[in-house]
Order: sequence, then structure tokens, then C-alpha cells
Amino acid sequence: MWFDTPAIRQLIDLGLTEDVGTGDAATDATVDPTLQRTAGVVAKSPLVVCGGPLFAQVMRRVDPTITVTQLVAEGARATPGERVLSIDGRVAAILTAERLALNFMGRLSGIATAARRCADAVAGTNAVVLDTRKTLPGFRSLDKYAVRTGGGGNHRTALDAGILIKENHIMAAGGVAEAVSRARASGTHLLKVEVEIERLDQLEAAIAAGADVVMLDNMDNALLREAVALARGRVQLEASGNMDLARLPSVAATGVDFISMGALTHTVTVGDLSLRLDP
Amino acid sequence: MWFDTPAIRQLIDLGLTEDVGTGDAATDATVDPTLQRTAGVVAKSPLVVCGGPLFAQVMRRVDPTITVTQLVAEGARATPGERVLSIDGRVAAILTAERLALNFMGRLSGIATAARRCADAVAGTNAVVLDTRKTLPGFRSLDKYAVRTGGGGNHRTALDAGILIKENHIMAAGGVAEAVSRARASGTHLLKVEVEIERLDQLEAAIAAGADVVMLDNMDNALLREAVALARGRVQLEASGNMDLARLPSVAATGVDFISMGALTHTVTVGDLSLRLDP
Amino acid sequence: MWFDTPAIRQLIDLGLTEDVGTGDAATDATVDPTLQRTAGVVAKSPLVVCGGPLFAQVMRRVDPTITVTQLVAEGARATPGERVLSIDGRVAAILTAERLALNFMGRLSGIATAARRCADAVAGTNAVVLDTRKTLPGFRSLDKYAVRTGGGGNHRTALDAGILIKENHIMAAGGVAEAVSRARASGTHLLKVEVEIERLDQLEAAIAAGADVVMLDNMDNALLREAVALARGRVQLEASGNMDLARLPSVAATGVDFISMGALTHTVTVGDLSLRLDP
Amino acid sequence: MWFDTPAIRQLIDLGLTEDVGTGDAATDATVDPTLQRTAGVVAKSPLVVCGGPLFAQVMRRVDPTITVTQLVAEGARATPGERVLSIDGRVAAILTAERLALNFMGRLSGIATAARRCADAVAGTNAVVLDTRKTLPGFRSLDKYAVRTGGGGNHRTALDAGILIKENHIMAAGGVAEAVSRARASGTHLLKVEVEIERLDQLEAAIAAGADVVMLDNMDNALLREAVALARGRVQLEASGNMDLARLPSVAATGVDFISMGALTHTVTVGDLSLRLDP
Amino acid sequence: MWFDTPAIRQLIDLGLTEDVGTGDAATDATVDPTLQRTAGVVAKSPLVVCGGPLFAQVMRRVDPTITVTQLVAEGARATPGERVLSIDGRVAAILTAERLALNFMGRLSGIATAARRCADAVAGTNAVVLDTRKTLPGFRSLDKYAVRTGGGGNHRTALDAGILIKENHIMAAGGVAEAVSRARASGTHLLKVEVEIERLDQLEAAIAAGADVVMLDNMDNALLREAVALARGRVQLEASGNMDLARLPSVAATGVDFISMGALTHTVTVGDLSLRLDP
Amino acid sequence: MWFDTPAIRQLIDLGLTEDVGTGDAATDATVDPTLQRTAGVVAKSPLVVCGGPLFAQVMRRVDPTITVTQLVAEGARATPGERVLSIDGRVAAILTAERLALNFMGRLSGIATAARRCADAVAGTNAVVLDTRKTLPGFRSLDKYAVRTGGGGNHRTALDAGILIKENHIMAAGGVAEAVSRARASGTHLLKVEVEIERLDQLEAAIAAGADVVMLDNMDNALLREAVALARGRVQLEASGNMDLARLPSVAATGVDFISMGALTHTVTVGDLSLRLDP
Repeated sequence: MWFDTPAIRQLIDLGLTEDVGTGDAATDATVDPTLQRTAGVVAKSPLVVCGGPLFAQVMRRVDPTITVTQLVAEGARATPGERVLSIDGRVAAILTAERLALNFMGRLSGIATAARRCADAVAGTNAVVLDTRKTLPGFRSLDKYAVRTGGGGNHRTALDAGILIKENHIMAAGGVAEAVSRARASGTHLLKVEVEIERLDQLEAAIAAGADVVMLDNMDNALLREAVALARGRVQLEASGNMDLARLPSVAATGVDFISMGALTHTVTVGDLSLRLDP
Repeated sequence: MWFDTPAIRQLIDLGLTEDVGTGDAATDATVDPTLQRTAGVVAKSPLVVCGGPLFAQVMRRVDPTITVTQLVAEGARATPGERVLSIDGRVAAILTAERLALNFMGRLSGIATAARRCADAVAGTNAVVLDTRKTLPGFRSLDKYAVRTGGGGNHRTALDAGILIKENHIMAAGGVAEAVSRARASGTHLLKVEVEIERLDQLEAAIAAGADVVMLDNMDNALLREAVALARGRVQLEASGNMDLARLPSVAATGVDFISMGALTHTVTVGDLSLRLDP
Repeated sequence: MWFDTPAIRQLIDLGLTEDVGTGDAATDATVDPTLQRTAGVVAKSPLVVCGGPLFAQVMRRVDPTITVTQLVAEGARATPGERVLSIDGRVAAILTAERLALNFMGRLSGIATAARRCADAVAGTNAVVLDTRKTLPGFRSLDKYAVRTGGGGNHRTALDAGILIKENHIMAAGGVAEAVSRARASGTHLLKVEVEIERLDQLEAAIAAGADVVMLDNMDNALLREAVALARGRVQLEASGNMDLARLPSVAATGVDFISMGALTHTVTVGDLSLRLDP
Repeated sequence: MWFDTPAIRQLIDLGLTEDVGTGDAATDATVDPTLQRTAGVVAKSPLVVCGGPLFAQVMRRVDPTITVTQLVAEGARATPGERVLSIDGRVAAILTAERLALNFMGRLSGIATAARRCADAVAGTNAVVLDTRKTLPGFRSLDKYAVRTGGGGNHRTALDAGILIKENHIMAAGGVAEAVSRARASGTHLLKVEVEIERLDQLEAAIAAGADVVMLDNMDNALLREAVALARGRVQLEASGNMDLARLPSVAATGVDFISMGALTHTVTVGDLSLRLDP
Repeated sequence: MWFDTPAIRQLIDLGLTEDVGTGDAATDATVDPTLQRTAGVVAKSPLVVCGGPLFAQVMRRVDPTITVTQLVAEGARATPGERVLSIDGRVAAILTAERLALNFMGRLSGIATAARRCADAVAGTNAVVLDTRKTLPGFRSLDKYAVRTGGGGNHRTALDAGILIKENHIMAAGGVAEAVSRARASGTHLLKVEVEIERLDQLEAAIAAGADVVMLDNMDNALLREAVALARGRVQLEASGNMDLARLPSVAATGVDFISMGALTHTVTVGDLSLRLDP
Repeated sequence: MWFDTPAIRQLIDLGLTEDVGTGDAATDATVDPTLQRTAGVVAKSPLVVCGGPLFAQVMRRVDPTITVTQLVAEGARATPGERVLSIDGRVAAILTAERLALNFMGRLSGIATAARRCADAVAGTNAVVLDTRKTLPGFRSLDKYAVRTGGGGNHRTALDAGILIKENHIMAAGGVAEAVSRARASGTHLLKVEVEIERLDQLEAAIAAGADVVMLDNMDNALLREAVALARGRVQLEASGNMDLARLPSVAATGVDFISMGALTHTVTVGDLSLRLDP
């Protein structure tokens, strides 16, 4: 389960320990510990819902008797005011877990919402919008799940799950051709080789050396079109660098196969969700 | 050391495990493992530097022989193109650690940069801009350090480090006065009591019940001014809800003591930093 | 749940690993692993019961099918010979978990029993007997829970949950006034400032600098009374240092607000509890 | 190193996380973070020093540049006012680590001091005073180290490091002889078998079944002497139950080989140690 | 439960994290996540079944709703083609957990199978075949459980669960007699003392110094017989070094009490087990 | 560093905790704790050395002042009697760490030795001998490092580092073509798709559906040759199932690209290494 791996449990525990410490002073002081009530998580702005099962996991971690019902499915849109989750259990436990659970779900919904916008922006083209490894430490699998939930694609998940040769590798290896050749010679046979180029005159060398994918770094649409023409389908092409939502349709129209966008996970506008006890 | 607590070490380890897995396929394939070189971390947009010692900690965690020199101090501004850190060591290790180290420092610098803008926006008033508990799970102490580094203030760090009675507590307790009284009766004697109100007619009850601070939730500037007038210095006042940079000066001018702003940590524009090997 | 936080689970696991190692040699050798039986935990001296849910947690950690029924409530008194808990399940698992479960509950009951005696000793006065941070490493939240269960109060739970300026801080800062002023200027707005003084001539400076609470260190009752008179309600006062049960009533009678007592948690007489299989 | 095993590092980390949380509010507010000073740990009552290396380990964990010099050796006596440790480093780090480091060392010195008194009480006899498994969870190896440091002996360290058949095992197995026989048949060949008896008429059965050691539970000195006479050296004998310092010489004089005393570790009077910055 | 201790849970988590990483690419791509099916684990060669409960634990760790039924009991023999376990649940989860669960169970069944062959080889003699501490790091309790399941015996489980003086200790101590005497003087009273000798002329010294067991290192059967004759039952004897299955009967016939065999756990032929979905 | 990742440190800690427990009874009893000496690790059979840096890491974990010098490089052959490592430091610490350090290095050298034999067996052909995911839980990165050190190749390192569709996936997906198509549609763009077939009539479907690699499961050399002929270089081919050293040359001669061999890591003959103190 993506929301209950050993690493996610450690992250939830880090979050609980840092937030709850030795107790929840306000709740312990003001709320009858036996009081049971239903509460709702409501969207306060339009968003793509993501992270409900993780929200529930955090609640159960604080009190295993809390139940959470997801009313809007993962990946579906919620409108402002729409109830996304229903929660039932001890009020004191719900309030203690509230902030941590919302902090997780707000981030995931924020990412999914942005990914959905990006996917919509390239709909009808062959291009797929991808995330990058610019995820937050500890959140790799969560951030990438949110991107998929929103309709985006995942670039490699980790340094051992794909060979992406970047500018610093090329400098260290002594050139595009040399770097790609080394990668083909020594990599695992199930990993493809992608190489980042900064000038079009590097493209042919990359192809000749056997790259499977070429990343076109920080190029304008004219250059991207030229690259597509030069490549003639011999490699897949990924446009990268300074992407934003507005630019996506025109980039997709150049014919590149992938558009990667660090902002999908490095600059996230939180999904605005709020928890209220039912009256 | 804020960058080397048990919790931060766990977070670094989570980050390394998820990113490096069983190895760095591209680096292992293309870079001579004995190659030594100097590299620089350069700002690509104007930012307030934050997180250098944590960057160094990540590097050393991958290879203890790497040395990092911080050229722009924590909290100082860097201009685009300015070299912020110098790194010396094995290239392969530097490249393997690069992304994780930058992911941390990008977030912290992004928060500090925003906090600095907010602090500047209220300069000359008595108001302090505060963060909230809307930090990312696992990042509480880091996010709050970045806020301080940028010149902002920290709201309570955890649920046991202050008593903040929110709307749900009031509903569960049966009213503002009841909730505040319970909190004063049962809390630790070194914790103050703050209560959130949504209407001005709750202010007098809050003061009468002995609140130390009153949070004014989602009020416009006219209401905030009225609250300041009503309070007559008997409690401290915190404005909260839907704050943004543009609104800060006018909110500060109402005379409130604190302005809290979740966006400082929940919606972070990453600080744009890039690592390049020196030629 | 106080008995099932991430930190408590780690502590239980440390306890199980160190005690059980690769197995329970005596139990494995002598007890039929399928044998089911009921057992009782009995008080062998008068005590205030504390830690039953933690006892049950340890049992379930060794064998999730064990059930524990608490017969004397948390905070209630048990008389010698009184059955406090009933346990039902596999005998082999109960015996393997017995020592760890009792070690926890014996400490907690011991603390609660002492806290009850102290609370009784100051009954009828305004003084509250507080614990300190002299808890055992790993036991902070447990020790403080036991103090509350016995009727005592909790001093700050951690270094970030209150500002207590002690002698060494004053020496480093250069004086009481300087230290208190710095604390008021830089602390979180929900934390009060307490300062420790060793001579009465420091009291006025502490009040003038804005301390919320003054700790009177190692003063006799005459000095405490004088401090109460001098303070005239402008600050709360805490008596501290070399407290014992016999002295509490007279200290409480001086009019101080709080009496802190490290011995509550640093020198604990274990609650005498014993587990026996029912015949 | 006894003070730096994986388990001890986890315990130190639990202690730091619970105590320091997101920071040391008082120290951060009042102490210049670059200030360097020497401090001393001084005994405030007569005690047997124990735990200096662990104290140093805690200090270094907070700031690796702190140095600690031990002036009174492990196991040696310190007189009131005697300086036991000298500490050199950043004052802020020393004050943040102080309480945790002292909490460890106070317990260890308290145990060693009591163990020394017990060992002295039986000096000149053949009896050895032993601890039990009534140690605090997480402290097994530390508590037992302190007992040895004070001159006491260690009973088995864990459930897999010796076979001790207690009353509940006997009840489950159906008798002393049956339990001992099973233990001899199935135990590891390097573990001896000890059995607890509550009446002298069980002694012969225990010997006949092949016990290596017999624990005499809650017997008065007359019964102990009778047991020694009956055993005629065929098994070792351990007196156990309700031991205290005053009774030790007379128990030792009965001729038993071992006297085990839970109070050595379950009811510890903390060693009174205090840290002061040098003027 | 041997398959659910804190250490085993950590090992399972290490295994899941290293194997599953951010997800199971093949399963996620090809299997409908809601598909339920029954699967079987089948023996592909004759083996002694061991590790079924651990297999189930791994499955449940990935998906708590999976159920596992063990058809061949722990320690029983399975023939090629025999169904050993039945598994019921979500196919995607079963396939993700498959390899880790089989890797554990294959090792344990392999060890149990070898232990059974060894036990059979010495049947009818007094000798017991023992394992050693040459287990894989993290697998001590599992490997030793498998040996017992196959009918072998366990040598000491850890360095604190028996005193075994080896050649290097003797060299450091200055001789067999000196080493054994020190061990008898300082060891825990429930641990026996065993000493390794390499020449028969050391045997008498070992006995005289009070060894409980003597390990005869790398001796041929003639020397072993001579040792048995010399010892005359005064110590137990363990033959050790370069043992293999073929030699066991003749070694057992020499009259030694124990035969220890590192290969039982250091050189394991995996039990061949395969998981297939039912058609 | 491959020998010092967060996961490896956890595994070392598991190993130390399970082996050392509360102390090393024999060493503590017999060896002067201040004694310093040099020791050597010597090969007792011909082997390919692997794991020296990990051996050193374990030693330093027990005592940071121990130094280890590697005399035979990683991947080089050692002859019986050859000194592989020199160790310098406290004898007591060396002896306590010895077994754990050797258990690691014995496994790694055993794997490297076997991998070397396999690599030699296919030398002169285009075939590469690969490992599988049949590594021991917790040892994935170590086992695969050892295979590389011996000259073998690594199959995918984890479930997210390559798409390998096995028989159960095909059954769940409804056929080879369907499974491969799904994988191509949904996988990460840097992962290749491999599919396992059991009959040659599945080969064309696999190629048509776009597989990058086809695994030929349990086929004899005639069938393998036929597959090579049918594939005509359109896909890479991997022979798998029941491989052993003797068969490798003939399999390699069939023209397959890869030969995978679970036994490389699931059935390891330990490298025979021994630690002796220098006289």
C-alpha cells in the first residue's frame, strides 16, 4: 500500500513526534476525552483530491478506532465547500491528528491539482508532462503518487531506476559520447540511457553513442522543433527547464515526447482543506 | 545543532534511501570514482540564503571527506549568479548527494526569502509576522528555522508548546469562556493561552476568561482595527487567515501584535540554486 | 494515546530486545506453548495504580491475542493483596512479557503514589506540587503522566515548552535583568518566562524585567515568606530545591504558587506489583 | 563500548528528542551561541562515580566539539563538593545537553553507590550481591554496568542468558522436578539451570532433577541456614526477596552463595550531581 | 512470537524498502489492483518446511487483508510438487511481496532441511549436532529457529549467553588455565565455561581449571576418541571444525557430546519453493 | 559509500545488537581491556576478496580507534594462507567485533568468488552472467556489489528499477501480448520491459508487443539456440532457470545475451576467512 510502507510509517512517526511531543495541551485542557463526534474535511478551493487513505492512516495512528470515509475519490475534482472525507471517532484524537493529516493531504492534493492542469494543457498531443527528482526529502513516493493521481507521468523514481546523464556527468566523463558509451557499457540491462544536452550540435553524438532519450535543456520552442526534426524518431526527446503551465501547450506542439517540470513538486500550492466538527 | 538532531538525521536517511536506493546508476557508470574536483552552488534568482550547514551535512553523510565552505551567510541575500557554497571532494559522491542536498536547501532558502519579504513589509510597525504549524511533516524544526532566518517569528512549535484554542475546541468545550477557563485551570504554568474568535462579540468573553492572546480569524482590516480598540491592550492580538504579502502592511497598520501566515511554510516557492562542477 | 506514541513504541521495543534477545530460555523449556490460563497482577503494598494500559500494550506486543482487564482504575488506590489487572492468554507469552510490563508499571505506580502523597500534603493550600525535567531518558511523557495521575502538576515538558532561565543562563547572559529581557524579546509569544533566583535581592530585578514566574532556589521557609510578601502578586512564585514530603505543608503555607520536586521522578520507590497465574 | 552501542544511541536519541524538541528556548534566548566556557560537574553528596563516558557521549551528540575530562574514575568515590568532570566547549550546547547527561549519570552513580554499600556489607564472606532483571526498560546494560562498577555482581542479563525457573513456570510445568528436567533436556548446553523454591521440602527435588542453582525465595535467615546445611554444596544457593542493606551481613553469614536484590536497580536514589559554569 | 519481534520487523522493513522502493513497476503496470485470487507455494525439491509464519507476516505487512494457510507444518517434510502454503488475497499485493517472502522462507527451509539430515546422521548416538554464531547478520534468531526446527541444537545464541574461550582469548590471556580461571571468576553464575583446545595436552589443564565443556578443534576421529577416553566424563566434549554430513556418523561414534557445524548456517542451500497463482 | 548507507548501518546495528547483547562474556572475562595488538585476517581457501571496507566499518563501529589495512584489493584473488587484512587496535574490541565482521565478509567473498568463476566460464562469449533478486533480505546492495566485484552483472536491483513481467503477471493480465502492452503504456520512460516466456511460440508475441528483453525460462540449449535464431537480434535474450557453473559455457555458446543465475546469491558457499592475533 503506497500509504503504509516502512518509509511512510517512519515519516508519519516523525511528524507525530515533532507535532504532538508529550501531548496536545489545548485539546487535553478543553475537550472531554470520551466525547465522540463526526467531522468533515471540506475543500475550500477547487482541487483534485489526493491523499485520503494517508489522511486516514494518520488518524488511525493516533487512535485506531477512528474511521474515515472518503466521499470524493482519489483523482476526482472537489468544488469549494464540497465534503471530501467524513471522520468518526473521539474528538480529542481527531483534533490532535488533524494538522498532521491535513498537512499531508494538502500537499498531495496541491500536487495532484497542478498535475491535472498540466495534463489538461497537453491533452490531444503526444507529450507527457513528467515530474522530476525535485521532491521533498522523505516524500518521493508520495509526491510521485500525487503526480500520477493528477494525470502526470513519473520521471525516474530514484538514482538506481534509470540512467540520466546530466551536464556535470558529461563534464566529468569528458563529453557526451564518452558518457553515453560508458553508461551503455556498464548499466543494468533494464535501464535506458538518457542524456541532457544544452546545444543542438550535441544531439547527433548522443544518438550515435546510443542514447535512448535526449533531454533538451532550456531550449526555446524553435530549438525544440529543430531537435524533433533532427532526431527523426531515432531517440525520444524530453524538453526540460523553466517550464510553466502557460508554456506547456506550445512546447507540446513542438513534437517532443516528454516535458519535465520540477515545479510540479518543488513549488507546490497547498490544496486548501479544512476540518470541522459536525454541529 | 539544528541541522544534526536525531530527527533530522532520520529525515536525511529517509531522503538518501529513497533517492539513492542501491546506487547512482548514472554516476557509477560515467564518473571515475577517484576524481576530485571543486564545485559551486550558485543562486539563479535573488534569494535569502538558508540551509548551508544542512547542505554540508548531507554531503558529509554520503562521503565524510567532502568539505563545504559557505560563502554567503545564513540569512544574507544572494544575487543571481552569486556563488553561495564551495564544495570540495570526490565528484562521484558530490553528484550522488547533489539532489537531496539541494532539495533541502532550496526549500529552506525559499521559506527564508518569503519570510524576509514579509518582515520587510511590516517593518516600522509593531507587528511580527509568524508562521503556523502548516509545515511539512518531518520539517517542523527546519521550516521554523528558515522563518527565523528570514526575519519572521515562530508561532508555537508543537502542540505541547503553547495552548491555542481553535474553533473546534470551542465547539467541543461549549463556548469561548468555558474553553479558556479550562485551559487556564489545567495547563502547564509556563504556557500562555490563546483563543481563536470568529466574531468580535466573542472578544470580551475571551479577555474575561483570562486569555493571554486572541486570534482574530479571517477578519478584514476594519474589524481588526475595531478589535484593537476594544482590547485596549488587555490581550495581545493575532490576525490570521488569508494573509498575503500585499495585504501585510495594511494589516500591520491596524495595530495587531502578530500576523500569522500559513503560506510561509505551506506554499513555498523553492529557492533556485544550482550545483556546477568548476571547469 | 499516551501509551502508544512512536516514542513509547520505540522504548517498548528497546525493552523487549534487551530482555528477550533470541528467546525466553526458561519459558521455552518448561511451558507448553499452547497452554492458556488467566493470571492476575496484585498489589503487594498500598499504591496508586498507574500504567495499566501500558502494561497491556507490552503484553499485546509480545502476543496480540492476550487480553488485559484493568480492575483498579488509573489513579485509584490499591490495597495490599488487591487484584489490579486480570490477564488472559497464552501462558508462555504472558511469562515472557511479564518482567518488562511490570518494570514499566512498577515505576509509573511508584511515581503516582508519591505524587498522591505530595498532593495530599498541600491539600487546602493554593500550592501545586510540580515535577521537573529530572525524568529518566526516554520516560519523559510516561513519568509526567504518572505525576498527573497521582494528582501532581507538570512543570514544562521540554526545553521548547517554556522558558526557564537558570543560574548558568544568568551567568552567561550577565545578570538576571539581561537574561529575562533577552527571553522576553526573542521567545515564542505563547511561552512564559520563569527565572531562577538564589537571593531575594534579585527578585525585584526579575519582576522589573518582566518575568512571569520566579523560581526561588534553595530558600528556607522564612525567605519564601519574605519573597511572597515582596512579590505582592506581581509574579507567580515557585519554591525549588531539597524538597521532601515532610517539608511540603510548611512550604505550601508560605504562600508560594508552586513547589517543584525533582525527587518525584528522579528517586522513585517502585510500586510493588506481582504477577501470578491463577491456580 | 558500553556507552555507545546501537541500543544506547537509540536511547540517547529518544532522550534528546523528548527533551530538546525543536530547540532550547531559554538557552537560545539568553546565551550567545559562540560563547565558549569551561564547566564542572560536582558531586553534591558522597557517591561512587559512574557514567562519565556516557555523560561525554551525550555532550558530543549535541555538539561534537565539546570535550569532557573525567577527574574521578569510574567506580571511585567522590566527596561532596568534589569536581568529577570538566567540560569545555560552547556554553549553549553544554546547557542544552546538561539535563539529559545528568539524568543518565545521576542514575548510574546512584546505582553504583548502592551497589558499593551492598558489596561492603558482605565483604569477608563468600556471598556476592547480585542485581535482577528489575531494571528500567532500555537501561538493562547501563544499570548492570553500574552494579558492576559499584562492586556488585550481575544476575542473568536477559531471558536467553540463563535458565531461571520461577514459581509460575513450576505451576505451568506441574512441579519443580518436571520443570528442571525439561530445562536440562532442552536448554542450550552453555546455560545453567536455576530454580526458585518457596519451601525447603522442594530443595531435594530440585537437586535431584539436576538444578545448578537454587533460589530460596523469601526465607528468613534460619531457613537459609537450614538450606545451606541440606544442600551440602551440591548446588549453589541464592537468597532472594525483601533484601535490604541492613539485612545483608546476616544473610551473607548463612553461607548462601548469592544474594539478589531487586532494589539495586528498581528503587534508585539518584546520585546528586550538579553542573556549573566556571566563573 | 519468533517471527514478529522488534528486530524481525526491522529486517522485514529493510527487505521491503530495498526491494519495493517506490513501487513494483511490473505489477503496477500489468495487474488490475482489485483482482483477487488464490495462490500456492509449492516445494520444487524435497525439503523440511520452515518459515511459514514469517512468510505470512511478510505478506500481511504488504497487505493486511491477505490470508495464508500453512498446509505442511513447520518441521515436516514436503515432497516435490507438494503445496506447502495457500495464499488468498489481492494478486498485486501477493506478487509484490512474493520475492521477499520466498527469500526468507527459502533460507529457513534450506537450513531446516540440512539440520534434519545432520540430526538423522547422528540418530542413535548421544551426540547432538549444533549450529554456531556463523549466521547471517540480522538472521541470528531466524537461523537458529530453523536449526531447531530441523532437529538440530543451538550453540550459544549471543556473546552474552555463554562463555566460549577461543584460541585468540587464550593467546591474550596467556594460556588455557589462566583464561578458564578468569572466566570462572568473573562470569555470570548462570553461564557455563567452554574452552577451545587445539592439542590434547591442553585437555587436562582445561579440566583442572574448571571448564564445563571443552571444544576439540579440528581433530580427527582418533584424536576425538582419545579425548573422550582422557576426559572420563569430567567435562562435556564438543567436536568442531571441518565437519560435513558424510563425516558426522563416525564423529558421533567417538563419544563426543556435541558436534558443531558452521556450515549449517554459513553455507546454506536454499529450499526450492515457488509461488504460482491458481488457474 | 556502498558500505555505509543508512540501510547498511541499520543492518550492522541489527547484527551487533543480536550478537553482543549486553556484552561479550568470554572477552570481558579473559582479555585485559587495554591490551593492544595486531591481528590478521587470512584466507583459508582460494577466494576472491570482497567486503574489506565493510569489515573495517564493523570494527570501527565497535571501537572507532581500530584501524584496518586491506592487503588484497577488492576483487583480487587470495590464496590459502594469504593475509588479506591487517587490524590494529584493542584486542577486546577486535574479538567482540570479529564474528560479525567475518560473517559479512565471508558471504561477500563467497559471492564474489562464485561470480568470478561464472564470469570466467563465459569469457570469450557475448553472454553476461547476471544475478537475480534472490538475495537475502537486507543484503540486496551488498550481494549485488559482490557479484559486480567478482565480474558478474546485476539484473534489476529492485521492483522499481526495471519491468520484468513474469508468469504470474502474464496469467493475471491475460497473456504475453496484453501484459507487455500494458507495461509499455504505463511504465516510466527510462525502464525497459522484459518478459518471461516458457514456450518458444510466445516469443513472436513478445517481440511484436514491444518487449526489450525476453527471458527464456528453463529451456535446454537446443531451444535457446532456436530462440536466438528466431529473435534475429530484435530483442535481447536472457536464459534463466536451473543454471549451474558446468552448464554456463554451453549456454553462453547458444548466443543469448544474458544468463541469470539465482544461485549466485541464494546458495552461497561462504568464503573461508579466519582472524588470528599476531603472536
